[in-house]
Amino acid sequence: MAVKQKTMDDLFLETLKDIYYAEKQILRNLPKMAKAAKTSELKQAFEQHRDETEHQIERLDQIFEMLGKPARGKTCQAIVGIVEESQEVMEDFKDSDALDAGILAAAQAVEHYEISRYGTLKTWAAQLGMKDAVKLLDETLQEEKKTDALLSKLADQAVNRKAA
Amino acid sequence: MAVKQKTMDDLFLETLKDIYYAEKQILRNLPKMAKAAKTSELKQAFEQHRDETEHQIERLDQIFEMLGKPARGKTCQAIVGIVEESQEVMEDFKDSDALDAGILAAAQAVEHYEISRYGTLKTWAAQLGMKDAVKLLDETLQEEKKTDALLSKLADQAVNRKAA
Repeated sequence: MAVKQKTMDDLFLETLKDIYYAEKQILRNLPKMAKAAKTSELKQAFEQHRDETEHQIERLDQIFEMLGKPARGKTCQAIVGIVEESQEVMEDFKDSDALDAGILAAAQAVEHYEISRYGTLKTWAAQLGMKDAVKLLDETLQEEKKTDALLSKLADQAVNRKAA
Repeated sequence: MAVKQKTMDDLFLETLKDIYYAEKQILRNLPKMAKAAKTSELKQAFEQHRDETEHQIERLDQIFEMLGKPARGKTCQAIVGIVEESQEVMEDFKDSDALDAGILAAAQAVEHYEISRYGTLKTWAAQLGMKDAVKLLDETLQEEKKTDALLSKLADQAVNRKAA
């Protein structure tokens, strides 16, 4: 019996499972980052992004439904590593003035992972003719880019405060 | 004896070690990705980026030298996870038409990790008044962004080829 060749549909589904798992890890990690952050702007940014992340997971649920597949995550080693690094910086710089800078950097690594994954999934959804999925994935992609831009702004502000 | 508080200088140095380790892993992985890729454009993109990566490591060497510190990496769990995922897709989709799409996506996850790290390091170098380091970090940042844009173009071309 020949093994069935994997297709673009398989690649799309597996990557969807990867980001689904990643979003759930991020959802669990964001309150820890909000709690650790010293400045109120950064705390607020993380709390707001936590709410956004819940909606992003709902969008993924919808796409699983379009595919007629159960919404199920698959361990994503990339996010495991990225989250581990964020926990390391929170621990190592706990009492340091540089703590927020470290947390900001870790959060931007998370955002960039998501930007790359949602960009990819959007391209593939278009290829597979899934117009509604393209729309949902693009909504999340724009949110992630906006969050990354906000974090960059907060990082620059911190620099300017130091320089002042 | 009081423990010395960690500073921005420590954060900068530790993140420099993180990306130094990451670049070395990427350097080792790129030939595997070039070998696995089916289309010549993608093979060529990886081979070119391998050469670029060597120069990027040299720039990091220069920054370590500016700091008067030995150029030494520190295990970066994020890149370990990202590279692991790229190896998984190369294995799982070995005989699939979707192989190149999967490799492209993995490569873009790597690029985005680097974009986030170099963006952060550039901001911090400015804060620390290290003008020459800012210049070097920005050179690499622009290369990473260019590589990501090229990979996006190749991903779109693949989609259009399928649609034609």
